[in-house]
Amino acid sequence: MAEARTRTAVLISGRGSNLAVLIAAAADAQFPAEIAFVLSDRADAKGLGLARDHGIPTAVIDKATHGTKAEMEAAFDAALRDAGTELICLAGFMRILSAPFVDSWRDRILNIHPSLLPLFPGLKTHERALEAGVRIHGATVHFVRAEMDAGPIVTQGAVPVLDDDTPDTLADRVLGVEHRIFPLALDLVASGRASVKGERVIIDGAAMAPDAALLSPPD
Amino acid sequence: MAEARTRTAVLISGRGSNLAVLIAAAADAQFPAEIAFVLSDRADAKGLGLARDHGIPTAVIDKATHGTKAEMEAAFDAALRDAGTELICLAGFMRILSAPFVDSWRDRILNIHPSLLPLFPGLKTHERALEAGVRIHGATVHFVRAEMDAGPIVTQGAVPVLDDDTPDTLADRVLGVEHRIFPLALDLVASGRASVKGERVIIDGAAMAPDAALLSPPD
Repeated sequence: MAEARTRTAVLISGRGSNLAVLIAAAADAQFPAEIAFVLSDRADAKGLGLARDHGIPTAVIDKATHGTKAEMEAAFDAALRDAGTELICLAGFMRILSAPFVDSWRDRILNIHPSLLPLFPGLKTHERALEAGVRIHGATVHFVRAEMDAGPIVTQGAVPVLDDDTPDTLADRVLGVEHRIFPLALDLVASGRASVKGERVIIDGAAMAPDAALLSPPD
Repeated sequence: MAEARTRTAVLISGRGSNLAVLIAAAADAQFPAEIAFVLSDRADAKGLGLARDHGIPTAVIDKATHGTKAEMEAAFDAALRDAGTELICLAGFMRILSAPFVDSWRDRILNIHPSLLPLFPGLKTHERALEAGVRIHGATVHFVRAEMDAGPIVTQGAVPVLDDDTPDTLADRVLGVEHRIFPLALDLVASGRASVKGERVIIDGAAMAPDAALLSPPD
């Protein structure tokens, strides 16, 4: 009998391109997580249609139905628990979760952020990378803490910054890396190979190939 | 007739492993810089012997001979100008240069720093990278400004951080990258392909190969 897969919920606000790669990764029955639930804080998030196309239960909890942040988060929490959620992935979820919510799901929420954290937390990371003149930029998957874009790092991927980059071309290159490191991080966490010790992630047996961290731009 | 190569001085305080790779790169007559002078602030810097072995003029200007910071820097400046220096490379030079010195050599001093700046300026970068739990670390070559470890970035190289890394093993891996990006940066600057525009480095024709920025650890 197959081992039970980790029931994973994905929280989105928009098109859900990272949701799409997580669904694709989980389509392999050997992948240790299943995407069991998709929750959006916006009724018009395109990722909802994608989830439905794959037969994944969805819910929308937005300001129209739940006025305050506390009410919304109580509804998130109830919906996630009803869906039997064991692990949460934030995939372009544009809402900052409160400390009580985050603490009640401690070490069970992953976020993807388009920079090499701790550099460039917050918004407009690609603009800021270009302004700073860095030659290497990237993306990070980390466990969520109450501070924004902070928490133990599971995986990172790097891309070069080219002279003729605009925020958009750089975002596209970083997105290619996001699509590779988020499934990798979910695999590591859902399989139990990655775990938080202190405030660092330990990967069982140092099993991550060095190359996994250093990704060239996709062709 | 060959074009004149850029007369480059290297400032060291220690073993000079980066000096060694710069000397090796410049041994190729096609390389656009020559290592014309090596200056140390310590009489016992091992890199001095290496320079002498290659017939490169050296000088020691230390506290014993020049008591104050201002006296030392005046002596640095005089020695560098006497040697016909056009470009300065700081290669493990452990002294912070004052604003007047830096300003008088503006855009003509390169420094190598063992982190992906602007992350981890200052000392003990590998310890701090491990404490922060980053999965990607690296090194940076940048033009020097009066603030420590700041200034327009010429090249960066990235390495993975492995679970069983100690500051020493991580330092070794980063050193491998330093040895590749410092000659690359010197090549770009001495040839005129890299130049400062605003406070960013522009590389002529976006000529840097994407792979130059993303370096796996040496085997």
